[in-house]
Amino acid sequence: MPIPPEHRLWNDFLRVARRRIAGYLPPTPLVRSEFLSRELRRDVFLKLESLQPVGAFKVRPAFNGILASLQECRAAGVVTNSSGNFAQAVAFAATRLGVDSCIVMMRGASEFKRRRTEAFGGKVVVCDDSFRSRAETTERIRKESGRVALHPFDSRESIAGNATLGLELLDQIGEDFTLLAPISGGGLIAGTALAVKLGRPDCRIRGVQAQANPSMKRSLEADRRVLTEPSASLADALTVPRPGRNTFALVRALVDDVALVGEEAMRSAIRLLAIEEKLVVEAGGAVSVAAALAAPREVGGGPLVCVVSGGNIEPNLLREILSEPGEA
Amino acid sequence: MPIPPEHRLWNDFLRVARRRIAGYLPPTPLVRSEFLSRELRRDVFLKLESLQPVGAFKVRPAFNGILASLQECRAAGVVTNSSGNFAQAVAFAATRLGVDSCIVMMRGASEFKRRRTEAFGGKVVVCDDSFRSRAETTERIRKESGRVALHPFDSRESIAGNATLGLELLDQIGEDFTLLAPISGGGLIAGTALAVKLGRPDCRIRGVQAQANPSMKRSLEADRRVLTEPSASLADALTVPRPGRNTFALVRALVDDVALVGEEAMRSAIRLLAIEEKLVVEAGGAVSVAAALAAPREVGGGPLVCVVSGGNIEPNLLREILSEPGEA
Repeated sequence: MPIPPEHRLWNDFLRVARRRIAGYLPPTPLVRSEFLSRELRRDVFLKLESLQPVGAFKVRPAFNGILASLQECRAAGVVTNSSGNFAQAVAFAATRLGVDSCIVMMRGASEFKRRRTEAFGGKVVVCDDSFRSRAETTERIRKESGRVALHPFDSRESIAGNATLGLELLDQIGEDFTLLAPISGGGLIAGTALAVKLGRPDCRIRGVQAQANPSMKRSLEADRRVLTEPSASLADALTVPRPGRNTFALVRALVDDVALVGEEAMRSAIRLLAIEEKLVVEAGGAVSVAAALAAPREVGGGPLVCVVSGGNIEPNLLREILSEPGEA
Repeated sequence: MPIPPEHRLWNDFLRVARRRIAGYLPPTPLVRSEFLSRELRRDVFLKLESLQPVGAFKVRPAFNGILASLQECRAAGVVTNSSGNFAQAVAFAATRLGVDSCIVMMRGASEFKRRRTEAFGGKVVVCDDSFRSRAETTERIRKESGRVALHPFDSRESIAGNATLGLELLDQIGEDFTLLAPISGGGLIAGTALAVKLGRPDCRIRGVQAQANPSMKRSLEADRRVLTEPSASLADALTVPRPGRNTFALVRALVDDVALVGEEAMRSAIRLLAIEEKLVVEAGGAVSVAAALAAPREVGGGPLVCVVSGGNIEPNLLREILSEPGEA
């Protein structure tokens, strides 16, 4: 797929983002999975964003967003909203950079992630269980307090921050590859796809969503951003009901297709990653591996690279999944 | 501590080992632990041997041992004995290199590790629950079958294979550091200490054993290799009752001291590594972190590097530990 010329304009933002975050976030490991490579008869690598500080890739957009206007953030503080991983990431990055942070989370957000957000120094404001209430609460706080608002996925800084993951992959793999990455609002895959396709246009990219929340897939099918009310899912990190304006445009232009993954497949992937790969991964971080297991050959060629985007699983859920029968 | 001149002779073996295994085992990640660095007010890094194929550092000596006499191993097969991680590693490396492998394990060895050894293509022979029975069974098989015997920790090839971990650390850390590494027979720490102290003599090295099996510590105190009957411990990878002849000499010359870690401290470290670091670690792999938590300052200066030597914990034990109360 040719890269639309306007996307080349991003090149500078990506390089700037990489320089900005370099002192705070070293590249995450890319490890070969012996087990998956054997099972799928294809080289499979895992990009371990679960080993980031706070246990998720979201520190990339958090650092890039705050560093982009550090003086203003230091003076006024920041506000954002999140289902949990961006919350922790903003709290962590803000504290590290001497910035006050306020994070709006829904009442029903993961309790584990909420406690961790507070532990990282974030002030959590709880709102009702709807994306509308969350957006309104965030906007009210921004207006009243003058805090700098950080968009969790659709701002230029968030997308460029996520793109640093793609730049690292280009350094870490010497050939064209096929990438599998989770999609919620689309920030991770939009940024990563930008970096990867600008660097190596022949790489293939498959997005992965929970069957319970196919918001990007439905939007691509409709060729416009549609609202998809999410159902309950283990993947509490993949619940954004409508893609961002920018992320949708980038995904439509750069991502080859989107696969859906069911709840049982997530559980199996979490179990497999713990027992065979010695990794604690949350459901939203395991969907790329679940999708690789479901269809190891139908996407592109070269090695398969699964983005393991986060590890913040509730300990009780991990216990439950470890007790389930499985191969290992 | 000055390095005795005879240890400099090892230099060549180390370089050869590194070249030998390079095509099979890329360097393992070294990651900064945000949580431990904050808790201990000191930079703490984790060397993730748990992410090796088979989930333990033992693939280093396994590949180096087989590759050192590959033609002979291919013709005659190999035999070894192990509490579990070297068993899996030899099975894996042998299968990869087209070599037939036979591994002697005690009846009481971890069932999880035994099943994995077979899954990697090793033929397991079960013997009685004593180190004597294990040694005799191994020697009998060697004599009867003509297989090449691989020593799990005390051969030159095993020590040089383990030393590749130390060579990687010298590349990965640009300053003098303090290393914490587990000790069972002493192979891991002897090899690592050799590489580290030959390269940077001012690094400090603390070995760590389970209180239930202080075989190296007792031997150092007695200034000779004494037999210490091990008691039951979660750390089933750290049960060798007497140091090797070579490993003892190297540890005496190169390791600064040996700390002991209790069972509760291991459980806490396993829990912390899962919840904060998103890593599945077995008890023998968690003792370095447990020792760092117990005494973060009394060893040397610079960053603390904990070798996370393996991740092969029984899923049921991990479940049990995740249900225990803790800070996170």
